[in-house]
Amino acid sequence: MNKHLTRMQDIIKNSNYNNLIFTDFYNLYYLTEIKIDSGERMIALLINERGNYLFINHLFYVDNIDGVEIIYYDDIDDPIKTLSSYLVDGEIGIDGKWQSSFLFRLMDCHPSKYSNCSSVISECRLIKDEEEQQYMIQASKDNDEVMKEILNYLKLGVSEKEIHDILISLFEKKTRQPVSFDPIVAFGKNCGDPHHVSNQTILTKGDNILIDMGSHYKSYCSDMTRTFLQDERNKEIYDIVKNANLLAIQAINTSMTLAQIDKVARDYISSFGYGENFTHRLGHGIGLEVHEPYDVSKNSNIKIRNGMCFSIEPGIYIKDVTGVRIEDLVLIKDDKALVLNSFTKEDCFISL
Amino acid sequence: MNKHLTRMQDIIKNSNYNNLIFTDFYNLYYLTEIKIDSGERMIALLINERGNYLFINHLFYVDNIDGVEIIYYDDIDDPIKTLSSYLVDGEIGIDGKWQSSFLFRLMDCHPSKYSNCSSVISECRLIKDEEEQQYMIQASKDNDEVMKEILNYLKLGVSEKEIHDILISLFEKKTRQPVSFDPIVAFGKNCGDPHHVSNQTILTKGDNILIDMGSHYKSYCSDMTRTFLQDERNKEIYDIVKNANLLAIQAINTSMTLAQIDKVARDYISSFGYGENFTHRLGHGIGLEVHEPYDVSKNSNIKIRNGMCFSIEPGIYIKDVTGVRIEDLVLIKDDKALVLNSFTKEDCFISL
Repeated sequence: MNKHLTRMQDIIKNSNYNNLIFTDFYNLYYLTEIKIDSGERMIALLINERGNYLFINHLFYVDNIDGVEIIYYDDIDDPIKTLSSYLVDGEIGIDGKWQSSFLFRLMDCHPSKYSNCSSVISECRLIKDEEEQQYMIQASKDNDEVMKEILNYLKLGVSEKEIHDILISLFEKKTRQPVSFDPIVAFGKNCGDPHHVSNQTILTKGDNILIDMGSHYKSYCSDMTRTFLQDERNKEIYDIVKNANLLAIQAINTSMTLAQIDKVARDYISSFGYGENFTHRLGHGIGLEVHEPYDVSKNSNIKIRNGMCFSIEPGIYIKDVTGVRIEDLVLIKDDKALVLNSFTKEDCFISL
Repeated sequence: MNKHLTRMQDIIKNSNYNNLIFTDFYNLYYLTEIKIDSGERMIALLINERGNYLFINHLFYVDNIDGVEIIYYDDIDDPIKTLSSYLVDGEIGIDGKWQSSFLFRLMDCHPSKYSNCSSVISECRLIKDEEEQQYMIQASKDNDEVMKEILNYLKLGVSEKEIHDILISLFEKKTRQPVSFDPIVAFGKNCGDPHHVSNQTILTKGDNILIDMGSHYKSYCSDMTRTFLQDERNKEIYDIVKNANLLAIQAINTSMTLAQIDKVARDYISSFGYGENFTHRLGHGIGLEVHEPYDVSKNSNIKIRNGMCFSIEPGIYIKDVTGVRIEDLVLIKDDKALVLNSFTKEDCFISL
């Protein structure tokens, strides 16, 4: 049986939960190795003392899953009613991604104590085992290489959308897996919008170039941002962001919290008067999903532990003018940060 | 103010709900015309007697929305706590797509009566107004044309994935909008899996060819399936499916329920002994989303009304052997079905 599933069964024995229900695509992959997007049709894995049950629409064929009984339903059935008949008495944990429509219906069918059990599985997924660590390392290696390759396509007159599309095809060739998120390619003033969507904007002389991209290796994500400058004009903010990135990474150790790491970068950026221009968290957890618990932010009073993997991505955004973001992934090994990206941050200049 | 939003305010006045919270991407577009995928970050539109409030992360810039106050939050804020401070006493309706993690948190912050208010907005979205009807009609016209174009690319030796990718680029040229779902291109025995994912399978002599595809016109979806035969072998099941499609469409009128229409097609298919091979609902509602309430299925005791739009898509699937599905969209006008797809179902043969 899948080792992660075994761990959930242990949790049932040693927690207040009598039933755990997992419904999220990635949680289901983590626990059963199936990859099914069932759209609006309900899918749920129930774990309790009676057994492990996967409820799934008949339209989706599933191979045998060791230790899991598969319960198929049809479009004309009420799958929530079926699921409720397999519950045992006591508290029910539901993972946080489930649609509230299903939750409301289950609460009607089976009144009981309900709560969000996302943290139970997040805590497991948070700490990458040896195998998962190797996948994270390889994913970021591939990402470094694609960043090198994309430089060959950066020329004055090219559009963000063209670079964006080339990136996707480079990843397809390199990783044979989809990108882990829609790549952000921003030129010039578009760099001032941290969530810019690549469009027909043309690369012109002097523009900053920001590229935020990632893919997968064996389902585990990469994610890196680099910003390139054509001249000295934005070198000051570049250096502030780069030093914030380096200082935060150096500060990481297992006696610190994620909030403290955020503070290191934020205080540094603020000391130059750019605090208001660093509009987002310093980073986010990553693994099977590109954004996983926990954030590296003021609110994350979470101790750093070996096996955690997260991004460090300070940025300075000057709306409608320009912006810089520099992002690396780190893996916590031997109580400190192993940086998974080796693509240079020192040499930011590009001549076109 | 957006006419759909005005309608929600009327519903607040005339229902048990004192607060309505909409969070779903399409509901938000329907009510405010914004299109924002905020990922795991909370977004919510609250409507109550105090006003209309959109809660959104600062990272997403929103233009002014007439009649809506925009409340920004940062990554370090607790947006659910902020939202709860804008609630008025009384019942709270939540749309069904909200993540249960947010719902659990809101229930903690603000104990009250909660229920699923999806049906409130679904009822509005169900009945397309004149403008929406024109968009649905145009979307399906475009879909018919792309189906004609893709025939030019069907040749022995081509792979499903190649046809799939060409379809996506044809749609991009024709509609300048994304596909409404990942197109299904299935050859030969893959037609026996109703949710087949296009792969490297090569088109060979004698294979059935099943293409299920759609795009958008002004954000409204198209969706059509045709199956093509190379020889007479599967003509019997083709004709059964085609006649089931035609009989169901002819039967549609505003004195019938959706369940009764499903029964027309299902009984017909069953009378030939293929009842077990028609494994899914006869159809689904469609509009801003490719799957919307209500299903055309045994469970849908919903009266058919003018302005409704749904698919009629009977199929026969013989696992690991072959399959046929024929799907059209219909719009209910003057108490009967207007078929939105004009691509032939009569001439199913293709010579390669």
